[in-house]
Amino acid sequence: MVIGIDVGGTRISGGLASDRGELRSRLRRNTDREGGAAAGFSEIVRLVTDLEELAARAGFPVSRIGVGFGGPVDFDRGVVLLSHHVEGWEEFPLRSRLEQHFRTPVIVDNDANAGTLAEWEFGAGRGVNDLIYINIGTGIGGGIISGGRLIRGARNLAGEIGHSIVARSGALCTCGKRGCLESCASGEAMARRGSEALGRRVTGRELFELARSGDATALGVLNAVIEDLAHGIGFAVSLLNPAAVIIGGGLSEAPEELFLRPLRVAIPSYCLGESARHLSIEAAQLRYDAGVMGAIALALS
Amino acid sequence: MVIGIDVGGTRISGGLASDRGELRSRLRRNTDREGGAAAGFSEIVRLVTDLEELAARAGFPVSRIGVGFGGPVDFDRGVVLLSHHVEGWEEFPLRSRLEQHFRTPVIVDNDANAGTLAEWEFGAGRGVNDLIYINIGTGIGGGIISGGRLIRGARNLAGEIGHSIVARSGALCTCGKRGCLESCASGEAMARRGSEALGRRVTGRELFELARSGDATALGVLNAVIEDLAHGIGFAVSLLNPAAVIIGGGLSEAPEELFLRPLRVAIPSYCLGESARHLSIEAAQLRYDAGVMGAIALALS
Repeated sequence: MVIGIDVGGTRISGGLASDRGELRSRLRRNTDREGGAAAGFSEIVRLVTDLEELAARAGFPVSRIGVGFGGPVDFDRGVVLLSHHVEGWEEFPLRSRLEQHFRTPVIVDNDANAGTLAEWEFGAGRGVNDLIYINIGTGIGGGIISGGRLIRGARNLAGEIGHSIVARSGALCTCGKRGCLESCASGEAMARRGSEALGRRVTGRELFELARSGDATALGVLNAVIEDLAHGIGFAVSLLNPAAVIIGGGLSEAPEELFLRPLRVAIPSYCLGESARHLSIEAAQLRYDAGVMGAIALALS
Repeated sequence: MVIGIDVGGTRISGGLASDRGELRSRLRRNTDREGGAAAGFSEIVRLVTDLEELAARAGFPVSRIGVGFGGPVDFDRGVVLLSHHVEGWEEFPLRSRLEQHFRTPVIVDNDANAGTLAEWEFGAGRGVNDLIYINIGTGIGGGIISGGRLIRGARNLAGEIGHSIVARSGALCTCGKRGCLESCASGEAMARRGSEALGRRVTGRELFELARSGDATALGVLNAVIEDLAHGIGFAVSLLNPAAVIIGGGLSEAPEELFLRPLRVAIPSYCLGESARHLSIEAAQLRYDAGVMGAIALALS
């Protein structure tokens, strides 16, 4: 069996799965952000220990541990570069520390790559050798499978479509640039643009509700966000010619007629016609389990 | 030895090279555009025959023939899909026709992929496993090497950065969209933008000469073109995290202080900081021989 651990800012989730990726057990812990990396690492160790015990009770050894981390990871060295949410993770040798402790091979990657592998192995991308996965939540992240392989780039930073620019004079992004896809079309950006247009604070969910009830201002904001997304995705489609684009994260659960359907209509205006012709644009399938299944996909990769 | 054939709209070039890619002989023929694909195919056969004879005289057999074609190619089937310049190439089974004739393994791909392989194997990209090659001439084409492999996409259309959009309300492109990188920043677009700004017809070369002599209007146009290029390249860098971007085609021969140097300065404003930090931006090395060396790289791939 294999163990997958998903390390978020305030929560660590773990799963035990068969060698074919069938999830057998699932555990989840909240972590103390104040405790920094030390507290987080202890929690990971406790979670793996508990899952190993479950595996032992079932009579199976654990052959591999996968960890999807919510921040940049030097994949080759198995080292976490930093966390944007928790202190102390700078240059943390997570792979070697876990391998020393558990005497089991460990694979560590960022959660965007893990999520991409999960949709490819177990979700909407099964059997598709060229796909782009885009996670639209508070921020926007993503990953690329091309020719049946995860594209990592020179420093394991490939897939960062959230920080590609779609509007040069657009809103300021957390990364310091203007008009990044994330600053125009993430869940947070959508709420901000909706609040500005409506003159009162709304959440992304409320914006969708207003749009559904026919509110013209809300529909206008939603349309502008979808055009920005179509621009960013269309650029990536011209560049990579995938067979599928898979949309995950909170926004993938928005009503299809208000989000995925108009997005499908808009994308071909922003990419090479030949690349649009055979492209499918689908919602991710792994929702609640996405993080853990990503870590399990890493363990099995 | 291997043979490489570069098929352009009005010219077919061929080369004979050692198994390590050392060019031994070079031939070139103008073709009759009016004759369509039939005349072009006959010319390819004559060129290969001549190069085979040269190889035989030197006492070496030809083990492989590579063909770089100036138009979309179905790589897996070895079939040319069409030529934008010459009629009759629609669904032309170039690989099987040549293999039947010469009884030698043939590999056929589009010239953008061939050019990318050439710079990677023999040019500015030697030893770099993650790179983007961009050819800026009359149009803009390109190719991607990631993790030491050419990225083809689902239908061998990957690398089409020329038809990615950098200015949504920009100039109309030959592909029917507005604001493609090609319609903003190709050699032709540069001449058009220069002519509009100066109120008289200038070529790209004249625009550079004016800029060099300090003409403010010409410098302004050049700067706007460079910003558009930096936007398109920066997007691709965020998405793919390459170690190098290699600029080929006519524009790569522009004075460095007017083109490559300001482009290097501009790109980091358009991509993820971490991906810009270790990025090199270089001119292609294979100029006159680029097409033939690309076909030779295909033969050796």
